[in-house]
Amino acid sequence: MSSTLVLHHLNVSRSFRVLWLLEELGLKYEIKNYTRTPELAAPPELKNAHPLGKAPVLQDGDITLTESGAIVEYLIHKYGPQLQCPEEHYVDNLYFTHLAESTLGPTGSSKLIWQILPGRVPFFIRPIINAVGQRLIGLRLDPELTTLADLIEKQLTKSTSEFLVAEHLTSADFMIFWCIAFFEERMPTGSVGPKTKEYIQRMQERPAFKSAVEKGGPFK
Amino acid sequence: MSSTLVLHHLNVSRSFRVLWLLEELGLKYEIKNYTRTPELAAPPELKNAHPLGKAPVLQDGDITLTESGAIVEYLIHKYGPQLQCPEEHYVDNLYFTHLAESTLGPTGSSKLIWQILPGRVPFFIRPIINAVGQRLIGLRLDPELTTLADLIEKQLTKSTSEFLVAEHLTSADFMIFWCIAFFEERMPTGSVGPKTKEYIQRMQERPAFKSAVEKGGPFK
Repeated sequence: MSSTLVLHHLNVSRSFRVLWLLEELGLKYEIKNYTRTPELAAPPELKNAHPLGKAPVLQDGDITLTESGAIVEYLIHKYGPQLQCPEEHYVDNLYFTHLAESTLGPTGSSKLIWQILPGRVPFFIRPIINAVGQRLIGLRLDPELTTLADLIEKQLTKSTSEFLVAEHLTSADFMIFWCIAFFEERMPTGSVGPKTKEYIQRMQERPAFKSAVEKGGPFK
Repeated sequence: MSSTLVLHHLNVSRSFRVLWLLEELGLKYEIKNYTRTPELAAPPELKNAHPLGKAPVLQDGDITLTESGAIVEYLIHKYGPQLQCPEEHYVDNLYFTHLAESTLGPTGSSKLIWQILPGRVPFFIRPIINAVGQRLIGLRLDPELTTLADLIEKQLTKSTSEFLVAEHLTSADFMIFWCIAFFEERMPTGSVGPKTKEYIQRMQERPAFKSAVEKGGPFK
């Protein structure tokens, strides 16, 4: 039977999570690669896959699903019982799975946008936009990113395995990994702790991770 | 037995979701009310409940949990089997539960921030910040909010009940309701469809909803 799974994947984006998970699960799937425009936006043809025009989009037969958190949970629910989180780690897994897109992602993205914005406005207003952005980053975004990095470092210190919460990969790993590794260079200096750095390195050494990079390009 | 549940609730915030859910489940809980500062920020004492300093924070005995999506799922998992989503609606429920905080929330918040920002900067740079914000809202945020409103309207048109996905309240209702009702006035004119407007009205008429407003103040 040929696979019904199709992943619409955008390079250097959240859809790397799904690609990596598909590889870890050893599922048969088709990948449709999309490339960011020179302005780093998603190309307009992604709207043919889903009206929001964002990646990832997963098709599984009649089902079309977006939101990386939903897709990761869906794939584990349907195809990956071995990656389901045991009840004793349920709360931590739930927390980090949601934290990734609800708080860490938006805070990291806000900082990124304010760092990029000055280069996208007419040169004479650039210093003003830069000053507003630096103030927002310094007063609000950086302190929050520092707290978030600390929460992740603490969780990895508490973990008794090489993974974030359980004795095997769970949804929290796919969700948090991409955020912390993607935003690492833009986190405040020194905020990403040693356990987190080792974790980022360790995940990248997994054969399924390397295979995902081979098929979909670099994740950051 | 006295309840072990404590909700740290901030007025006019996402924690209304949890308050409403606690009321729907008829659980015994303690509410700690926090009030926004004149600048609409969360008060600093929320950091005593959780280092991120945001609401909601739920304590359940030894467990301290943040992220409204995680708390809503946790409460239904532990105390609300009657609100668990039946398998036939699993995908829709999963999708809308994640969409609320991953896409609708951040997009709505971005628009809100850009609308508020001009009033928070020195008057001489106000026109510039306003112009940049209007451009971003017009080109990116409003089209996305329109698509999101359309996805919700379509789901409500498809639903065969008074709820978003199943024959009873599920996590998607608590998550989406707060976003769409909170951001309604800031969505592009005409984007929030008639089914959605009826839904917003209908949920507010529920006794548990009214009781939540009584205990925690208005939700928007």
